[in-house]
Amino acid sequence: MVNITKLETGHYRIPLPVPLTDSTHGVMTAFEIITAHVTDADNMVGVGYTYTTGHNGGAIANILVNEFPDIVVGEDADLIERLWQKVWWGVHYGGRGGPTVLAQSALDMALWDLKAKRAKLPLWKLLGGHDPAVPCYAGGIDLELSVKDLLKQTDGNLEKGFRAIKCKVGRESMSEDVERVAGMRKHLGDDFPLMVDANMKWTADEAIRRARAFQQYNLVWLEEPVIPDDVEGHVRVMRDGGVPIATGENFRTLWEFKQMIASGGVSYPEPDVTNCGGITPFMKIAHLAEAFNLSVTSHGAHDVTVHLLAAVPNRSYLEAHGFGLDSYIAEPLQIKDGKAIAPDRPGHGIEFDWKGLEALRV
Amino acid sequence: MVNITKLETGHYRIPLPVPLTDSTHGVMTAFEIITAHVTDADNMVGVGYTYTTGHNGGAIANILVNEFPDIVVGEDADLIERLWQKVWWGVHYGGRGGPTVLAQSALDMALWDLKAKRAKLPLWKLLGGHDPAVPCYAGGIDLELSVKDLLKQTDGNLEKGFRAIKCKVGRESMSEDVERVAGMRKHLGDDFPLMVDANMKWTADEAIRRARAFQQYNLVWLEEPVIPDDVEGHVRVMRDGGVPIATGENFRTLWEFKQMIASGGVSYPEPDVTNCGGITPFMKIAHLAEAFNLSVTSHGAHDVTVHLLAAVPNRSYLEAHGFGLDSYIAEPLQIKDGKAIAPDRPGHGIEFDWKGLEALRV
Repeated sequence: MVNITKLETGHYRIPLPVPLTDSTHGVMTAFEIITAHVTDADNMVGVGYTYTTGHNGGAIANILVNEFPDIVVGEDADLIERLWQKVWWGVHYGGRGGPTVLAQSALDMALWDLKAKRAKLPLWKLLGGHDPAVPCYAGGIDLELSVKDLLKQTDGNLEKGFRAIKCKVGRESMSEDVERVAGMRKHLGDDFPLMVDANMKWTADEAIRRARAFQQYNLVWLEEPVIPDDVEGHVRVMRDGGVPIATGENFRTLWEFKQMIASGGVSYPEPDVTNCGGITPFMKIAHLAEAFNLSVTSHGAHDVTVHLLAAVPNRSYLEAHGFGLDSYIAEPLQIKDGKAIAPDRPGHGIEFDWKGLEALRV
Repeated sequence: MVNITKLETGHYRIPLPVPLTDSTHGVMTAFEIITAHVTDADNMVGVGYTYTTGHNGGAIANILVNEFPDIVVGEDADLIERLWQKVWWGVHYGGRGGPTVLAQSALDMALWDLKAKRAKLPLWKLLGGHDPAVPCYAGGIDLELSVKDLLKQTDGNLEKGFRAIKCKVGRESMSEDVERVAGMRKHLGDDFPLMVDANMKWTADEAIRRARAFQQYNLVWLEEPVIPDDVEGHVRVMRDGGVPIATGENFRTLWEFKQMIASGGVSYPEPDVTNCGGITPFMKIAHLAEAFNLSVTSHGAHDVTVHLLAAVPNRSYLEAHGFGLDSYIAEPLQIKDGKAIAPDRPGHGIEFDWKGLEALRV
């Protein structure tokens, strides 16, 4: 038994090199990073983080500073499942969902990092160990780009080594969306893995209409056609749209994934380890998907998530999308021939540039 | 059009006269109140609030101070529905659920209070107007009380004018629970409206087992038999337990209510206006229940909620439970012959004792 002696946090605002847009979040000019540092009685440290598209980082940091230390300090750092339950129920009434889950995700990631470091194992081996070379796609946030600029961005992604690419859809008219998808398909060739992402823009009926128009372009998946709360809507899009559906970056619990998966509303469950409650629920979601014979993909935080998808047999593509954080990491994820390689360094193996981040502290 | 010029907030910690316990939240020694004050260009002010059982008030206040003003200041105070959507989607990524919804509930309540004050109408009339005399029950938080003390508390509630009472269940053994329920039924007589509340303590199977044991005691409802996330579990308890089910104080969206209601997992939907997103979603939930031919009950914040249940035809009992806030309100809710009367003062009609609260500011 090694007790937790300290939980510390940091809140940073990372300006984006170029503003990003999607169909729902509008223009994003900065991401927030909120970190959790867990120290144990041997002075070993585990580090976790979560991020936002610019809002509620203050609330997340507040929870990590004011609520969680009382719940976890003095507890056995190895009993992560026990701690997950203690935190979830400890703040449940004013907590369930939202910023609380993002805060808990950072804490849970830190605990797993610590455990893996103590075991001198990379996370992907600690969590099971399947295959460190994880197929990976470039997740573009590019709704406002013209088709010409979209193809230019695509060439950049091919040069970086990507062998699968996702672009945004959800333009005002369906013909604009079809033009984008047709342009990408023509540019990439018939069998190149291509996904599209609607960021919850549509009603179920509009999603079905557009999915049918996309059918001939052989998409790997259509992502977030409708709001995450509309389970029946997802089921209808799956059944009547004729394109596989990915969704989950806006689910905040294992139970939301269960509801959607068991209802038949998703082909590719897409948890984000920084907002689904952490590594503990991410792995459960991956295993739940396996039980339903589905492949799990991911959202955000590719540097940590590569370990999780390297640990399970039913992994689909890892999403790689570099918002500004990569500039503050010693060895950012390398993509080679379309695959991301889970590092063999102990823990998640991310070394943050704390000095650089300090200048961005909120 | 009258613009919003200011959104201010306060965060207070109100110690409880006696610590409260239930089966899930353990011992509660204080409640937090987080207030939202909306001022418009005519210097009219609307006031809303939310509360917690002791955790995450800091995060809620942080959101009200740092995120919401940018979204609502300068907007037309009368377009509450529009503002609700703008706030929900404005902070969605790091927001959906939890403290964000509690913060939004306080803001939405303030906007409705302002609108009703401007219209010189009490909320219950502004919102439709049905019947100001709302049947009401005493919601005891009394799991640790012996049967003797429970009956003593019950006599106090009868003296206060209550004609319906709820007590906690979820003791370690089923026979203890049955002893409590049998004792209450015997004490109150055959037809006195009696509810019980398990605060999410059980698995669906344990809930069915206990519900069946409670059947002979003619309960109005059994509340929160299982966790809010377990829709299928609720459906099983409804179907196999043989006792009507109330649930919803831990749902955070209209969609969660829709999921549970449409699945047949609840008889008495039980939104809390301070954590379901505010008056705007509360009314939608009440109307959704009406469409399913169900009666809506409530949780917490009886002073405001009395207006909402006075506005709709399908109201069941209002929950009255006085945590410490009543001591800081000029005219706390009066109960007469089992009914709470929605006041005829404009807005929600609550005058807070701001001086008294100031001493409790966090």
